[in-house]
Amino acid sequence: MKDITNKDIYSAAILIIGNEILSGRTVDTNACWIAEELMGKGIKIVQIRTVPDIEEEIVDSVTELRQKVDYVFSTGGIGPTHDDITARAISKAFDVELAFNQEAYSMLESYYGEGNVSESQKKMAYIPAGAELIHNKVSGAPGFAVENVFVMAGIPKVMRAMFEHVVSMIKLGKPLLSNTIACSLQESLVALELSDLQNRHQEVEIGSYPHYRGGILGLSIVLRSTDSNKLSKATEELLQLIKKHGVEPTAISSKTSSSINIDDE
Amino acid sequence: MKDITNKDIYSAAILIIGNEILSGRTVDTNACWIAEELMGKGIKIVQIRTVPDIEEEIVDSVTELRQKVDYVFSTGGIGPTHDDITARAISKAFDVELAFNQEAYSMLESYYGEGNVSESQKKMAYIPAGAELIHNKVSGAPGFAVENVFVMAGIPKVMRAMFEHVVSMIKLGKPLLSNTIACSLQESLVALELSDLQNRHQEVEIGSYPHYRGGILGLSIVLRSTDSNKLSKATEELLQLIKKHGVEPTAISSKTSSSINIDDE
Repeated sequence: MKDITNKDIYSAAILIIGNEILSGRTVDTNACWIAEELMGKGIKIVQIRTVPDIEEEIVDSVTELRQKVDYVFSTGGIGPTHDDITARAISKAFDVELAFNQEAYSMLESYYGEGNVSESQKKMAYIPAGAELIHNKVSGAPGFAVENVFVMAGIPKVMRAMFEHVVSMIKLGKPLLSNTIACSLQESLVALELSDLQNRHQEVEIGSYPHYRGGILGLSIVLRSTDSNKLSKATEELLQLIKKHGVEPTAISSKTSSSINIDDE
Repeated sequence: MKDITNKDIYSAAILIIGNEILSGRTVDTNACWIAEELMGKGIKIVQIRTVPDIEEEIVDSVTELRQKVDYVFSTGGIGPTHDDITARAISKAFDVELAFNQEAYSMLESYYGEGNVSESQKKMAYIPAGAELIHNKVSGAPGFAVENVFVMAGIPKVMRAMFEHVVSMIKLGKPLLSNTIACSLQESLVALELSDLQNRHQEVEIGSYPHYRGGILGLSIVLRSTDSNKLSKATEELLQLIKKHGVEPTAISSKTSSSINIDDE
């Protein structure tokens, strides 16, 4: 495992491996789930990338991303079929052998039964040399970690089971807290004031997201910070700003241990 | 617009711009929708990338991707607020000025009403110099294209309206046809045969996707090709292969003008 200096917020990338996502056949939900989980653990996703089942593409992306961020989380391509080439590609990216792993094989045996591991299932016991295995309670085959790259399955149920183990393997940061305020204002009406609010609260990240819901254009404003006091202050100001325009927020939600009492408003 | 040689299949990348996707707050559905639309138009997505609202990240990704593929389609970050920085970043990526565009301004005026365009809305008339505007019937603000990069809105309804115009601006290839066969076989049982099938049908891309549905592990096998005859042949063989294992396909679906008659089976 790569040694990483302690930080408040770690950076990460998610690498989704699989033609089925690129073709539009499958809507990926793994990235969103992982991102949300990590946010509460002080790990911020700075890039999500989906690549096809092509060795060179995986090698290039792993090589680029693992140098760019603290952690890379990959999903997909670790099954028994010809299009499952993630383990081979990761070996290549780290220039290590793709080797038979006795521990991984034992996991397959205890899942499928001793003597019952078929030739193609045995493929899943070939792991980059020196990798640490990622356990899971759902399927027999393990994921694995090489330095700062964590390789998980693509099936959401299996990925989530592996993620549980991954979290115990890495350093976590300070949770990113967030408040989301929805209102019926037109985005451009408050654009300049939001810009001003952002300038005065540099340690709070403010995002503005217009949306159509039931044919009506609305606006969600998201505030994020690791500092609950700073988050509260910026949120209070935003609420005042919205009311000044003569409307009430239509919804307020928090993912936060912030002390702002939204019922007091 | 960049001149591109005629091809059967063009390559493309999708660049999703926005913190809201990276935080897990919003599940992106644009990439999947665009990918599926393009598949039928002979354009194959080779990468989907999501980056934050940070200028440098956008510039780096646009620069890398536009050299890698025939077309780059971006969504998000072209609204009126402080976190909408896509136009500025694209200007920088192409080293052109971010300039007031009279045509774009006229579009805003005809949408909001003459004299009713606010200062922050006016920001949406600043477009990279030399860009071609992308019209849409839903919102007032246009997208734009610079060389092989097509910049669209993030709101799905607006993006889809822009995409309609984009399709008329680009060269299209031969539709990628596909057949999907679902069955109850365990993936590892057919892994070696699938690998063999893939080897014998090099012009058909065969993907194997296990899934849990209602707690039961199943398998979907997807075959893709621009050649309907080759697709039919590989599909017939796959159906035989599945039946040899004593099961019937649980579902067969086609996105294809292929002549295979799946009711005959």
